[in-house]
Amino acid sequence: MKVKAIIPFKKEGAKTRLGAFLTEKEREEFAICMLKDVLVAVSGSEIEEARIISTCSKLNFELDEELKLTVREDERGLNEVLNEVIREEKEPVLIIMADIPLATSESINELVRREEDVVIAPGRKGGTNALFLRRPYEFFVSYYGISYLKHVEMAKRRNLSYVVYDSFFISVDIDEVDDLIELVVHGKGFSAEYLRAIGVCLRVDKEAKVGR
Amino acid sequence: MKVKAIIPFKKEGAKTRLGAFLTEKEREEFAICMLKDVLVAVSGSEIEEARIISTCSKLNFELDEELKLTVREDERGLNEVLNEVIREEKEPVLIIMADIPLATSESINELVRREEDVVIAPGRKGGTNALFLRRPYEFFVSYYGISYLKHVEMAKRRNLSYVVYDSFFISVDIDEVDDLIELVVHGKGFSAEYLRAIGVCLRVDKEAKVGR
Repeated sequence: MKVKAIIPFKKEGAKTRLGAFLTEKEREEFAICMLKDVLVAVSGSEIEEARIISTCSKLNFELDEELKLTVREDERGLNEVLNEVIREEKEPVLIIMADIPLATSESINELVRREEDVVIAPGRKGGTNALFLRRPYEFFVSYYGISYLKHVEMAKRRNLSYVVYDSFFISVDIDEVDDLIELVVHGKGFSAEYLRAIGVCLRVDKEAKVGR
Repeated sequence: MKVKAIIPFKKEGAKTRLGAFLTEKEREEFAICMLKDVLVAVSGSEIEEARIISTCSKLNFELDEELKLTVREDERGLNEVLNEVIREEKEPVLIIMADIPLATSESINELVRREEDVVIAPGRKGGTNALFLRRPYEFFVSYYGISYLKHVEMAKRRNLSYVVYDSFFISVDIDEVDDLIELVVHGKGFSAEYLRAIGVCLRVDKEAKVGR
C-alpha cells in the first residue's frame, strides 16, 4: 500500500510560546530541526513520499534520507489548505505534525498498517498529532480546539471505521517551555541536539524543569 | 507467564495540586476512582493478581472484576517499600501507578509480553508510569525526579535488557488541573464519570481548559 505523508510546517513566527526561552532566530532553527526529526522518522518507515506544506517561501535544509520530498508553499490556514489537498488524494495519506520530534518510524509503521479507514494519534489537550486517512477524499480535517473529538465525530458521521493509536512519543508536541523536558529526556535527534548545543539542560528540583 | 501487578496508592492528602479545583473529599474520592480504572484495566489484561500498597489504613471500595486482589498497608516512602517488596518477588511484576486512569488492558498486555528484562512506560516530565520487571529481585526502583532516566541507568548497570514502551494513555498521570483535560476528552471509566458528575467540563477558547 502506498501512503503519502503530508506535513504542515510554519517557520516564520513559529512557536511563539517558547519566546520566553528561545530567541526568534532560535525558534526558527529549532522548528527546522523538529521538522527534520519528523522527516527522519517518516523516511525510516514504509512511507516513501512526503509533502511539506509550508507557509514559508524559502525552506532550506539538507536531509540525508531516502525520501521523495516535495514542498508546497501555501499561506492559507491549516484546515483550508489540508482539506483542499486531501480532496484530490486518491491514495492513503498520513497527516503528521512537524512539531512531534520524538515520533518513531516504528509507530508510523504501526499506524499506517492498521486496517481502519481512519487512525487518530492524539496529542495532549485534545489535539490530533497524526491522522491516517485511507480514503482522504471522504474526510474533512478540523484542526484547532479539541480536534481529536472533531475527527472522531467526522469519522462517525461519514460511516468510516476508526481507531485511536496510542503513542506517547507522537503525543508530545513541543509548544511550551515545559514540553522541552520531554525532548531533553527522550530525544536523540536533531532537535534534542540543537537544545543541547544552545545550552538547554534539565534541572531537577521537586519536579523536572529546563534551564539555560 | 505469571505476572503480578503492584499498585502504590495514596488516598489521604492525595493530589494536592488539584486543590484549587477539587475539595479534599473530592480529591480522595477521585483518587479511588482512578485506582478503580487502573484495576479494571489490569483485570482485563492477562494479569490475574494485583497487590495494592496503600498508605491508607481503610481502603473501602467495590470492584466487579475477576482479579485476585490484596492490599498491603505501609506508610513508608514509595522507593523504600517497593524495593523491599520486589526484592522478595520471584515472578515478574508490573509496577503501575494508581493515577493513570486511561491505561488500557491492551497496552498492559503488550507491555508484559515484551521479551526484555525491563520494560519502561514513561510518564510526562521524566516519570515512570509503568515498569515491568521480569526479574524484580535484580532491580532497584527509584521514583521521584527523572525516574525514567534512573530506571534506564539501573537496567544498564545491572546488565538487564530493556525497552521503552510507547503509550500515550499510560503516560497521562493526573497531577495538575490541566491533566483533567485528557480525562474529560478520552476517559470512559469511573474517574471520567466522577468528573462529569461533579460538573467538570471542557471549555475551549484558544486552547482547551477544564471548568466547573
